[in-house]
Amino acid sequence: MSKRQFHGVFPYLVSPIDASGAVMGEVLARLCDDLIESGVHGLTPLGSTGEFAYLSWPQKRRIVEVVVEAANGRVPVVAGVAATTNADAASQAREMQALGCDGILAILEAYFPVPDDGVFEYFKTIAEAVALPLVLYTNPNFQRSDLSLPVIDRLSRIPNVGYIKDASFNTGRLLSIINRVGDRMKVFSASAHIPACVMLIGGVGWMAGPACLVPRQSIALYDLCRQGAWDEAMALQRRLWDLNQAFAKHNLAACIKGGLQLQGYEVGAPLPPQAALSAEGVEEVRRSLAGVGALGSS
Amino acid sequence: MSKRQFHGVFPYLVSPIDASGAVMGEVLARLCDDLIESGVHGLTPLGSTGEFAYLSWPQKRRIVEVVVEAANGRVPVVAGVAATTNADAASQAREMQALGCDGILAILEAYFPVPDDGVFEYFKTIAEAVALPLVLYTNPNFQRSDLSLPVIDRLSRIPNVGYIKDASFNTGRLLSIINRVGDRMKVFSASAHIPACVMLIGGVGWMAGPACLVPRQSIALYDLCRQGAWDEAMALQRRLWDLNQAFAKHNLAACIKGGLQLQGYEVGAPLPPQAALSAEGVEEVRRSLAGVGALGSS
Amino acid sequence: MSKRQFHGVFPYLVSPIDASGAVMGEVLARLCDDLIESGVHGLTPLGSTGEFAYLSWPQKRRIVEVVVEAANGRVPVVAGVAATTNADAASQAREMQALGCDGILAILEAYFPVPDDGVFEYFKTIAEAVALPLVLYTNPNFQRSDLSLPVIDRLSRIPNVGYIKDASFNTGRLLSIINRVGDRMKVFSASAHIPACVMLIGGVGWMAGPACLVPRQSIALYDLCRQGAWDEAMALQRRLWDLNQAFAKHNLAACIKGGLQLQGYEVGAPLPPQAALSAEGVEEVRRSLAGVGALGSS
Amino acid sequence: MSKRQFHGVFPYLVSPIDASGAVMGEVLARLCDDLIESGVHGLTPLGSTGEFAYLSWPQKRRIVEVVVEAANGRVPVVAGVAATTNADAASQAREMQALGCDGILAILEAYFPVPDDGVFEYFKTIAEAVALPLVLYTNPNFQRSDLSLPVIDRLSRIPNVGYIKDASFNTGRLLSIINRVGDRMKVFSASAHIPACVMLIGGVGWMAGPACLVPRQSIALYDLCRQGAWDEAMALQRRLWDLNQAFAKHNLAACIKGGLQLQGYEVGAPLPPQAALSAEGVEEVRRSLAGVGALGSS
Repeated sequence: MSKRQFHGVFPYLVSPIDASGAVMGEVLARLCDDLIESGVHGLTPLGSTGEFAYLSWPQKRRIVEVVVEAANGRVPVVAGVAATTNADAASQAREMQALGCDGILAILEAYFPVPDDGVFEYFKTIAEAVALPLVLYTNPNFQRSDLSLPVIDRLSRIPNVGYIKDASFNTGRLLSIINRVGDRMKVFSASAHIPACVMLIGGVGWMAGPACLVPRQSIALYDLCRQGAWDEAMALQRRLWDLNQAFAKHNLAACIKGGLQLQGYEVGAPLPPQAALSAEGVEEVRRSLAGVGALGSS
Repeated sequence: MSKRQFHGVFPYLVSPIDASGAVMGEVLARLCDDLIESGVHGLTPLGSTGEFAYLSWPQKRRIVEVVVEAANGRVPVVAGVAATTNADAASQAREMQALGCDGILAILEAYFPVPDDGVFEYFKTIAEAVALPLVLYTNPNFQRSDLSLPVIDRLSRIPNVGYIKDASFNTGRLLSIINRVGDRMKVFSASAHIPACVMLIGGVGWMAGPACLVPRQSIALYDLCRQGAWDEAMALQRRLWDLNQAFAKHNLAACIKGGLQLQGYEVGAPLPPQAALSAEGVEEVRRSLAGVGALGSS
Repeated sequence: MSKRQFHGVFPYLVSPIDASGAVMGEVLARLCDDLIESGVHGLTPLGSTGEFAYLSWPQKRRIVEVVVEAANGRVPVVAGVAATTNADAASQAREMQALGCDGILAILEAYFPVPDDGVFEYFKTIAEAVALPLVLYTNPNFQRSDLSLPVIDRLSRIPNVGYIKDASFNTGRLLSIINRVGDRMKVFSASAHIPACVMLIGGVGWMAGPACLVPRQSIALYDLCRQGAWDEAMALQRRLWDLNQAFAKHNLAACIKGGLQLQGYEVGAPLPPQAALSAEGVEEVRRSLAGVGALGSS
Repeated sequence: MSKRQFHGVFPYLVSPIDASGAVMGEVLARLCDDLIESGVHGLTPLGSTGEFAYLSWPQKRRIVEVVVEAANGRVPVVAGVAATTNADAASQAREMQALGCDGILAILEAYFPVPDDGVFEYFKTIAEAVALPLVLYTNPNFQRSDLSLPVIDRLSRIPNVGYIKDASFNTGRLLSIINRVGDRMKVFSASAHIPACVMLIGGVGWMAGPACLVPRQSIALYDLCRQGAWDEAMALQRRLWDLNQAFAKHNLAACIKGGLQLQGYEVGAPLPPQAALSAEGVEEVRRSLAGVGALGSS
């Protein structure tokens, strides 16, 4: 699988944890299996939806073990690595590789602001620690640092830094990145962007939480975009957008976990002090899912 | 012209002012005439590029007189009205109507934050003061207030509030607006969004400064989008995007005035303490214009 | 009065405007007279509390005429000048001087960000336009620009730039300014700082809206600070602080106008779309005023 | 020591880590001993200056072991506990208590925004996990959450929540807290506030990184404030303020580690990708230290 190019729909998986702190492996494995059956192109544990910022290392390792085993080589697994220090990040990445992951979603956490040289060194350290392809992750809404265009350009010249997922609201920035890095790096959309727009400007797919809830519809949208059937794509995109909107208003993990429970996956609530999805939020997600046929017999 | 639906490319005009504070009407009229000859669908004086925040009322009125006279009914003129009070806004709008404008670009300035009810009253006051269609303008990057979705919804139910131009970086928000207001309001793109993406999701055109510099290319892009020739549209869009990028980095008025001088329009510099475009900025704009064939014999 | 050093308590006056847009001169003159009788050291029309951002030039000029006439040389009048262009600012300042003002509160408005050189030129232009002392005003909470320490240092070397009023929440920054400018510039507090603290670190007084409502108590606090009676000063300061808190929560003009109405001054509401003080806000202000003995028989 | 009331100067200790990731216990113990000899009232490992966000749990535990042993009961040790989940925070706090700490500096880390109820539960969980007094820590400059006044009020009613250290720039907020919580909670200053001002308004001391570098001067300042010798206090405060300013401009850990190296403590650099203090920063710190007699034979 090492030469496989990542593209398509990669759901951001939730991390089901029980009250004792144990990973609920069974429901997670079932979710992975169902998503693969639905046609998703890959799985992404330990993204923001996967509560990477809230889990202990043993919890993270167990999550990835379950997902790799469930995927069983059918689709690539791109696992999140998030740290504040180069040393911790490299150590995590090596363990992810040893666990059988196919790629690393590389996330920089920071308390103090990090100058560009530090940002570059952080991601370079991860890239050199493993043989796997890296997806750079940047989320200026929740993080204290962003990746500047010059740093993205420098990083795109590292051979195994192949992808970027930008979770800002600034779709124009994605086109600037595409114009700047050419073929050296591919762009994935996040749920804050309109996936059909990102596909139009040259993106290769999306990594996002809502795809956990609407995998079939997401695949259909992706296929329409790939075929250049933009009118049909937009008709579907407009109906799916409500879900991204709900996702943007609530705690991401709470929103996806709440939606999965409506679909019969008992994945629990986010780790406290995060709150479970409010009753109002549950109704909003229920309406969004019903509106695209993602409840009921699906 | 009253039944004309606004759509297409509306350049945000610059406001050429000489050292004594007088409007340089001749170069402004020539620019308007050339833009209309190039095929633009309308003209927008007194937007942000037009330095609405820096001009006295006599300067503003003279700018609009020149533009209306130059347009001479060939294309609609949608002039900016910006104020901090309802009374001032209504007064400006009435004068714009008397001067022969075809629409109002309505801008809320604020020093203290304005609750939603105040925002609604402000725009409603303008709408009721004139018989012209209104384009709501919102720019969270430079303004102290933004228009919330509920306020936009309420405003869309006022008969002559027909359009919105959102100058945030958040293209997803435009789709949320479109989903919410349906046919009651049409969406124009600003230069911070990728125009081709806004057309894809259902926008009707764009109002932006760069169209002053690349009118023919903007029209070509608009036509490709309208024909659904999305691949060709994106190929052109990618080349044009550099200019929007330069525009985003520099003072907008300085950038467009600097570019127009490269094209032979002696429109001067923005009003001090704004600085003229830096030498580095001039080179950046020159490269962007040359890259899309917008210098040379024009 | 030209050699008088500004110091002490300068209330930020409100701007009473009736429904027709006319300045209500009588109540404004009475307020000025009562404040002077209470012992205030100066009067400041057209600050943020005075709605400088919401008034037309004729309204501004009339406000200042009334205040200068009411002061009648008993205390200095330092009037706000606010503009986006150097030319407009200089023109306003000259008219303020002609109207008999004793100083200028100089405010930079901006739509686009202003680099340091532009900030310096703006204030220098005002300083050179008049023979009056200048008070620099900076309010990062409501304005799009702040004054950097290097610009403040440069400005402090202009002979008639003698004071600064910083309306940030950052009291430490005031000490940094004091350390940097030495005797070249004096510092006034704003209502976001604790006046007693600013006096402790070397400030010379405060310019703020709440002093309109509690002039006697403000003078008492100032006198205690000047005497070095810090324990008594703090005991009074703690009781007065509630009012500054209310002031920070609500629209400043609405809050002071609402309080003055409780004291029998019919100054009306802020200009729409600003809202009048809410019923809840009125109760909060009433409690604050009663708590320091500023209602009563007045 | 359990009944001891915390007050006075608590240096925020650095965390010396060698290239292999090991805690350099000897230099840390020597620093603690010297600080106690200088008269500090307590020691605070694992604050922001102590790089709590960058250390593994084994590193944190070792840091605290060294500090508790070095303190040897002479002054209280208040150790930082920082987590994103209630469970992790409670676990850390219990271990800190078992290690012999005298208090907990409680820090909430967050990725997604936390509503007030979650904030309350987080700190309540820590308070109930231990018998030690808690110091609430809030730093809106580097954290994604702040403590609202209502939450602070609720928390102040928990018996062992006795202190708050607010690291905003908003000194007025400290007075609002003091007015609101009365005797239920005491306030410590951070380096972003002017310590003398916080003492004036009723604070009980400060917890801050610069006190590592200037312990004697800090104690002298504290004593002057306690004696009510405000003029002498401010004369000293003005000279010390330069150091806080330098501290605010640079990475806090880099700044204090750089200064300690100038004083002969080989504490190394912050953990990468944080950068060591720049050459320019070293000179700035050197000048600040020399200016208050904190280099040389001290």
